[in-house]
This record gives sequence, C-alpha cells and structure tokens, in this order.
Amino acid sequence: MEEINNIEVVPCTESNYLKPFRVHYNQNGTKKSWDFMRTHDSVSVLIFNTTSHCFILVKQFRPAVYMCEWEKAKTKTSQEAEKTEEGEASESQEGPSASAGESPSQWPPASAGVTYELCAGLVDKPDLSLEEIARQEVLEECGYDVPASKLKRITSYRSGVGVTGSKQTMFYAEVSDDNCVSAGGGEPREGELIEVVKVPLHEAMTFAYDERIPKTMGVIFSFIWFHNNMSPKYKISTNV
Amino acid sequence: MEEINNIEVVPCTESNYLKPFRVHYNQNGTKKSWDFMRTHDSVSVLIFNTTSHCFILVKQFRPAVYMCEWEKAKTKTSQEAEKTEEGEASESQEGPSASAGESPSQWPPASAGVTYELCAGLVDKPDLSLEEIARQEVLEECGYDVPASKLKRITSYRSGVGVTGSKQTMFYAEVSDDNCVSAGGGEPREGELIEVVKVPLHEAMTFAYDERIPKTMGVIFSFIWFHNNMSPKYKISTNV
Repeated sequence: MEEINNIEVVPCTESNYLKPFRVHYNQNGTKKSWDFMRTHDSVSVLIFNTTSHCFILVKQFRPAVYMCEWEKAKTKTSQEAEKTEEGEASESQEGPSASAGESPSQWPPASAGVTYELCAGLVDKPDLSLEEIARQEVLEECGYDVPASKLKRITSYRSGVGVTGSKQTMFYAEVSDDNCVSAGGGEPREGELIEVVKVPLHEAMTFAYDERIPKTMGVIFSFIWFHNNMSPKYKISTNV
Repeated sequence: MEEINNIEVVPCTESNYLKPFRVHYNQNGTKKSWDFMRTHDSVSVLIFNTTSHCFILVKQFRPAVYMCEWEKAKTKTSQEAEKTEEGEASESQEGPSASAGESPSQWPPASAGVTYELCAGLVDKPDLSLEEIARQEVLEECGYDVPASKLKRITSYRSGVGVTGSKQTMFYAEVSDDNCVSAGGGEPREGELIEVVKVPLHEAMTFAYDERIPKTMGVIFSFIWFHNNMSPKYKISTNV
C-alpha cells in the first residue's frame, strides 16, 4: 500500500521532461499552428509466465493520474457545495493549484493514482534495438532475464497523436520461473517504485474489462491479443 | 492528399493547450517530484456501418506525429552524414529547431504525419454525459446522427499515465446509411480538417495489424473487440 503525503503543486516554467514547442504551417493553403512536445518512442511488453500461467504486470503510483483524480474530486466537492449553497460563486477550476497548507483531507487516497500497466520503457538508447531495450525493461522492472531473440513483436502504433506523436512497439515475452533472477521493481536510482503483479490466465479477461481496476489500454489489448493468438497453446477463460 | 508547407518550429513559452505543472510529494517516505499536464478526459467511438459493413474511421494530419517523423529523418540523415564524413562533429539533436529558412527538402512528405484514428473528442462540456459527447463527435466528425442511447460502452482506461493521466471511455456505435446526414469532417471553426474513411469489415484485421498503416492503438483494439464480440452477428475475416 502506497503512502503519499506532503503534496504540493506548483506551475512549472522550466521542465527537463516537458518541453513545449509550437509549429506553424500551411495545410492545403490554410495557416495553422499546433503546440506539441517531443518525447522518446517507447516499447511495451506483455509477459506471460508459463510456469504459473500468469501475466506479469507492473503496478505503480502515477502522479499525473493522481492529480487527475484529485481535480475530479475537487470539482465534485465544489459542485456539491454549489448545490447546497446556491447563489454563492463557485471556485474557478482553471488548472491545479494547491499548497502544503491545504487540508490533507482534500487529497484522495494514494490508491487513486495507482495503475496496472504492461512492463514498458522509453527508446532512449540509440545503439540498442527495440528488442534489446524491451529485454532490459523486462529484467529491470520484472526481474526476468530473457534473451532479446525470444521477444515476439506484436505490433506498433502511435501512443499519442495530439501532444507527443510518439510511437510504441509492443512485444510478447514468454518467461518461466527459471528466468526469474531478481524481484524486479525498477531502477531505484531513477526513483522507480514498481510493484510486480501476477494476473492468473483464467482471470485475465475479467481483469481486462473490469473498469474498477485502473489500467492502460495496452493491458486490455494485449490480453485480448493473447486470447486470440495464443489460445490454441494456452487456455483462457472467455466468460465475459 | 494533404499539402503541408511553410513549416516553422519555435519554442513555446506560453501555451493555452500545454500547461506544465510540477507536483512535489512524499512516497513511502521518499521525497519525489513529477512534471505533468492537465488535459480533459476523452471519448472514442468505434463506428460500424451496417449498410456497407464498413468501419468508419477518421484520418487527419497530426502535427505532433509529423514533427516526430521529421526528427527521426533528421537524426538518420545526420547519422548517415557522420558515417561518410568521419571525424566531423555531428549536429546536436536536443529538441526540434528549424525555421522557414531551411531547405524544404528536409521536410518529410505530409503523409508522414497522417494517422487513422477512431472518431474521438474531449470531455470538455460538464453538462453533457459521455454518451452525449460521443454522439456529438460522431455527428461532427463522421456525419452520422445516432441517438446517445444507441451508444454501447465498451470499456475505459487511462490514455496517458506519464504526462496527462487522463481517462478515455470507448463506445461502439452501429449506424446505417439512413443515419448519414452530412459529410462530417469536423468543425471548420475549430480548424479541424478531418477525412472520413471506410474500412470494409473483411479487411479490418489485416488493416489492424499492418504496421505500414499509421494508426492509434484504439483502432487495433476496437477492431479486435468487434471481432470477438460481434462476430456471431457479423462475419469478419481472421486470416491474420
């Protein structure tokens, strides 16, 4: 169980991670402009453990998700206040603004920011192939040592089209308990606090479509891909 | 065919669309911080035309995707130049930088920025239900007028976990030629230049997994969802 406290939000004028650019252009004679950000492409990996017949996911606290939920809770509270105190002006909801001085009771529980995801990572090492980067992520995040040659490419797509435009390539990795060389959990030096989670094969489809379980589309898509493409090899429950 | 020219990229110090924030917090006793941006949640809609047995997608020029491809082309060119002119220092690749003065030959064709996507839109009208927002997008972008009550919720997930944390809800809409009231194409006032595209049902799975066709994961996932859930009703080819 994550414990999150001492939360403080500030505007961010200079970020090493988020660097907005603006592009001006003519599209079919119409002058347009668009604000965007550059990020690295990424890889994600559906990991299936053939010993325990479980999918291996990562679970982590995501500040951006947490802030999103915080703002929804705030809006809801202010709307409810508006209903009970009609006529009073409601607080403006223009972007987050909060400080350590605010009552901690306004913050949702840490679980509101925790998501289930595929093992994934950025393509930020130009000398390595996508398979080699995926292999490193499987090792660092989930503790399984599998050769890059065992990674099967599922497909690729644009993971963002509005802001970043970056591409993600998805792989499938079959592992066994014999490949497990560490507990995983990410690179503590990079501040990663990742929990490795097993989802049993027979629960996978229920897990995928249970909207109460916060997750990425990659989890849902890859579970269904497995169901459609690996089911002759492994049985998966389809009672959904 | 899109025509893109007069491209100019500038750093963006003040954006109405991209507003970075920084959150400082303690996670299990460790002091951390994260840069994020707030965006609205979104809806996306898989549209199936029961008259023509086609999926209805939107196709549009995405500046962020284009810039991503431009940078890849630039990196490749500079790496190739490095190979032929060994010893010379290569150009730094720290973020985009270009101006109208650069040779147009450096810019990839407009098609490099065009993607196929599900009909989608932002949840930015607090008075409307998700179904009503989805309904409006189907009408504006694709020209089909269907009642909100006919929209079937597929599922929801986090569309971004690193930067935005926002949630997307996916719907399924069955339409017929009788529901087609306009050509669609988006709101010209909002600068949208959207092309409505039909993908025949029997080509859908090939389309989904053809990596040469640039698309979002939502297209792939929803086509497979249809295959698994609507196939008793409509036949879909599975020769993949």
